[in-house]
Amino acid sequence: MDAINLAEKFGRFTDLWSPKIIAGLNDYDVKLARVQGEFVWHRHDDTDELFLVVHGALTIRLRDRDVPLRAGELFVVPRGVEHLPVAAQEAQILLLEPRGTVNTGDAGGDRTVTQTERI
Amino acid sequence: MDAINLAEKFGRFTDLWSPKIIAGLNDYDVKLARVQGEFVWHRHDDTDELFLVVHGALTIRLRDRDVPLRAGELFVVPRGVEHLPVAAQEAQILLLEPRGTVNTGDAGGDRTVTQTERI
Repeated sequence: MDAINLAEKFGRFTDLWSPKIIAGLNDYDVKLARVQGEFVWHRHDDTDELFLVVHGALTIRLRDRDVPLRAGELFVVPRGVEHLPVAAQEAQILLLEPRGTVNTGDAGGDRTVTQTERI
Repeated sequence: MDAINLAEKFGRFTDLWSPKIIAGLNDYDVKLARVQGEFVWHRHDDTDELFLVVHGALTIRLRDRDVPLRAGELFVVPRGVEHLPVAAQEAQILLLEPRGTVNTGDAGGDRTVTQTERI
């Protein structure tokens, strides 16, 4: 139950596409991730997912359009909507979703983080 | 289903201590508020409440200590914990809590916002 400084938390890890839990809100987790390059197309059938760009820029590709985001911008991907996060340069993002939401959603594969670290 | 720019949304209102809804995430609302001065002591018995300072500085007073926050810092007030948000200068904050959470919690009174505006 302390103040959480986002920059300080980002300083604790360097791996990409591997969200870290920094806080809990009821049964939701607040996570931070460093991202660069392309992730994988996936969807979450049971939940919306919030992306807030803290540093840099991120594009959320949807099947019918791209949603470009820069620092200070957020986007909520509705449940069931396929999306592909892409970042040309390394970006720092905050994610919010129910505890236990898997990063790769329905897609699975080798970029799935099964045990999300708390930092 | 669009990108939401926090600065642009803050530019849409000037009233203090009156959160505006900018996005939904499942049954949660993402809200923005401008705050200055002291709010009222209150608690939310049914939910945690997340505060993220976007601009300026905010202190969350608890009964046993103060939690000072500046831009880029967040704090989750656990359910049932009395708190008093205070800002010496005007600050811009992002709030996250279940839809229908009342700003004054158990305290009620004339600073209660009964109909939260969506901007």
